[in-house]
Amino acid sequence: MNFEQLQQQVDFIHEIDKVKYIQRRTKLFNSDRPENDAEHSWHLSLMAIVLAGHSNEPIDLLKVIKMLLIHDVVEIDSGDIFLYDNVVSHSNTEAETIAARRIFGLLPADQAEELIAIWEEFEAGETAEAKFARAMDRFEPLLQNRSNNGGTWKEFNVTYDKVVQKKSIIKEGSDLLWSYAKTLIDKSVDEGMLKKNS
Amino acid sequence: MNFEQLQQQVDFIHEIDKVKYIQRRTKLFNSDRPENDAEHSWHLSLMAIVLAGHSNEPIDLLKVIKMLLIHDVVEIDSGDIFLYDNVVSHSNTEAETIAARRIFGLLPADQAEELIAIWEEFEAGETAEAKFARAMDRFEPLLQNRSNNGGTWKEFNVTYDKVVQKKSIIKEGSDLLWSYAKTLIDKSVDEGMLKKNS
Repeated sequence: MNFEQLQQQVDFIHEIDKVKYIQRRTKLFNSDRPENDAEHSWHLSLMAIVLAGHSNEPIDLLKVIKMLLIHDVVEIDSGDIFLYDNVVSHSNTEAETIAARRIFGLLPADQAEELIAIWEEFEAGETAEAKFARAMDRFEPLLQNRSNNGGTWKEFNVTYDKVVQKKSIIKEGSDLLWSYAKTLIDKSVDEGMLKKNS
Repeated sequence: MNFEQLQQQVDFIHEIDKVKYIQRRTKLFNSDRPENDAEHSWHLSLMAIVLAGHSNEPIDLLKVIKMLLIHDVVEIDSGDIFLYDNVVSHSNTEAETIAARRIFGLLPADQAEELIAIWEEFEAGETAEAKFARAMDRFEPLLQNRSNNGGTWKEFNVTYDKVVQKKSIIKEGSDLLWSYAKTLIDKSVDEGMLKKNS
């Protein structure tokens, strides 16, 4: 039996274990333990399954989940960039593109191409699937910060306007979800979790 | 706007965060840090995406991934049971069924029903999707133990016959994967990672 292709896939499976060591700034719900990228990707994927019905547009759920499962794999090489970082842009950087080519490039060529294309589609944020997947990515930390009495908002002195600006991308994926999220953000000011001005 | 259904979904999203605290016996690759159920479920889901082509039968990949993302959620209430535990059966227990009803029951009724049915299908292990998903669940710790010089095999004095017996379920999902796995198990004996007899 020929294991050549399978061995490439196993090499990839082994490599992506490193995602479990990449710490995010955001903490787990009701906790001070940072979430790692593997836990985060798992949570977003399951969120997509239960929230898919709220998407503005019809979506290919399998593609959305593929996006969410792989969206942070590039951080093995390029590291996690904090959403509210004022120096480094959170968007697709050259380092991330090089990382995607190296890591997905461990796979057989056809699979590498497919996953790189899906990752690029997520980063571009233009298709219905990418918009919904990105809504998940913004919605989870909002819930986490609320459960942690402000969490990274307080820790990094992030103000209301900045949160609304960064989170409003949720609206592109789901009007209902954004309406709910906006209610939570407003409530966070009333409850002293989020400052109106810096 | 009516957030009633969405609030139920958010309650579920909040509850399943606990999966990130459930530790498995198996350690991460090349590590002595135990893997948790969320990391494990993420890894299996991504494995299913890259290995789907090796399934014995055609599979609905979205359903396989749903199975893998939710398969350990019941352990929030019932705890992780070690594959080689000689006292407690690893199979579907009454406690797990009660847990599934409580946790998935947080969701709107139609979604709760769907996810309970998918979880039961995984546990029964009879459909092509369940067989392939279960193959993923057995294959990952095999790779981890090999990367950890025997890992839980050494730690819990598990012998070759027992490993072959437990892992041979991989064959039901994929002949190719089992053939590869069997080669690794045999090699583990030669390399002193796994004992032939107790």
